[in-house]
Formats: sequence, structure tokens, C-alpha cells
Amino acid sequence: MLGYEYEGQICSIARSLELVGERWTLLVVREIFHGRRKFSEMQRSLGVARNVLTARLQRMADEGIIEKRPYSARPERYEYFLTDKGLDLWPVMIALMQWGDRYEQQPEGRPSIVVHKGECGGEIDDRRICTKCGKPLTVREAVAIEGPGAAARPVAVGA
Amino acid sequence: MLGYEYEGQICSIARSLELVGERWTLLVVREIFHGRRKFSEMQRSLGVARNVLTARLQRMADEGIIEKRPYSARPERYEYFLTDKGLDLWPVMIALMQWGDRYEQQPEGRPSIVVHKGECGGEIDDRRICTKCGKPLTVREAVAIEGPGAAARPVAVGA
Repeated sequence: MLGYEYEGQICSIARSLELVGERWTLLVVREIFHGRRKFSEMQRSLGVARNVLTARLQRMADEGIIEKRPYSARPERYEYFLTDKGLDLWPVMIALMQWGDRYEQQPEGRPSIVVHKGECGGEIDDRRICTKCGKPLTVREAVAIEGPGAAARPVAVGA
Repeated sequence: MLGYEYEGQICSIARSLELVGERWTLLVVREIFHGRRKFSEMQRSLGVARNVLTARLQRMADEGIIEKRPYSARPERYEYFLTDKGLDLWPVMIALMQWGDRYEQQPEGRPSIVVHKGECGGEIDDRRICTKCGKPLTVREAVAIEGPGAAARPVAVGA
């Protein structure tokens, strides 16, 4: 517990950080946004110890941020999906991404760009509104594409 | 380093978490948003060890998120202010707060509510747009007021 009741107050920011402040949590959410749903994929991508990742996924499932669904019985294997509660972390992710794009610029440019999915393709602004058609976008209406700072391999974000 | 280059990619989310993912960082930003600028105020409010807070404040100053300004020469004392880079974490804070308000509801209601500063007083929505006058708000145009879930003591957020 992070001292989130101070002077008799309760703070929603501190309560959120209790759940998602451990940085692996947000990186796991990012992994799933990027379509990496399997333990082995996440573990390879994050370079995190297996026991740390196992504990983190369990905690996130307990908190209702992700849910695991079996895709193989023998051996027992699961894929991880974001619940609505997990999907609702999208604004946090976008805010972090845009802050990083602004203040930790790479010489090659932004690694990925979030755009309005489908025909429009307009970029989202800092309020998650499409800069082309003006629609306020939800997580399911947006997709990340490769920016100039991305490596050769495509980002291919599944929503 | 958090393995933020994966498959040859760079990720702005991971880079941001390098800087602000350590949860004390965002809680320090919150403290300053709440007008607690002095070491002793923050330390008391956060209940964090002095050496941890000292190290964290130094790191945040090195990263250009906060700046310290002396307010007393003997004894040597400083107040901490957010730089533009620090102020630009506001969307992250708001997103975390709203997620917490939604998923970690308190029986008494929300502890604090962010509204359009001044005459309008309309509440901000999840895109930081005033729900009353429709203005997209910046950090300097918003203020946190006490919600029904706050304790007796006012929140009094200085911008």
C-alpha cells in the first residue's frame, strides 16, 4: 500500500497506481494491444523473468484487467485478453506514448503512430480525436501503425 | 532498462515508463499538482522514506520533470515546481484518475473532481474537454475540487 490515504483523503490516482503502477503491468497491457497474447511471446518481447511474468499475469487476472483463455489442453496453454477494465487503460497508454514521443524523441522519428482504423486513417490527437474526420475515437476504432522510427518489421497491432 | 527495444523496435510507452513508471514519480507529480511543493510536505503526505524521496526528486530534476527553487538560505530549503515536461504529464494523471474513479469506486463517491477553472466550473470529460462549455482544457485551465468522497479537509489544488 502506497500511502494513498493521506490527510484522510482518498486519491484515485494513487489507487490506480496500486493496480497499474508496477510498470510491468502497463507493459503487459501494451503487449496485448500489440497482439502478443501468449506467455512465450510476452516473455520474449519483454525479456522479463518467467516467474515475474507469471506472478504479474496472475495479479492482473485477479484484478480483472486481463482474462486467460485456453488455446491448448495438452500442454496446457493460455492466451491473455484485455477485459473492458483493461481496454479502458487505453487513454493512459496513449497519454504515456504521446508524452514519450514528445520528450524522448528518437532521431528517426516516432516508432508508431495511432490512427483512425479503416478508410479514414487520420492520426489521433492528444485527446484521442481523429485529426482528419474529427471523430472522438474509442480503443476499438484506432490502430497503431509503423512510424518513421520503427524498425523494418511491421507493428501489426491487433485490436 | 526495461527491454524497451524489442524485435528492433523502440516503444514510446516503454520509454515513458523508464522515466515515470516508478510509481513514486507520478505520486510526486500529484503532490505538486496538489500544491505540496516542500520536501517535508511531500514526505509527510506520501509516507515515503526520506532517502527514497530525495533520490526520486533528484532523478526527476535530472530528467527535467521538476525544478527546485530555493525559498530559504539558512537552512537551505527548496520548493519543487513542475517544468513544462512535468506539466505535460497531466493527461496521464487525468487518465489514471478517471480509470481509478471508474474501477475502484469508493462508497462515498469520487474523492476529487477536475473542473474548468473560473466562472464556467464545468466538469472535464475523459478527453479533458469541458462538459459545460465544450472548451478543450489545458492543465492551467483546470482545477481539482473536492468530490463527495473527499474527507472534510479541502483539496485546494494550486495550478
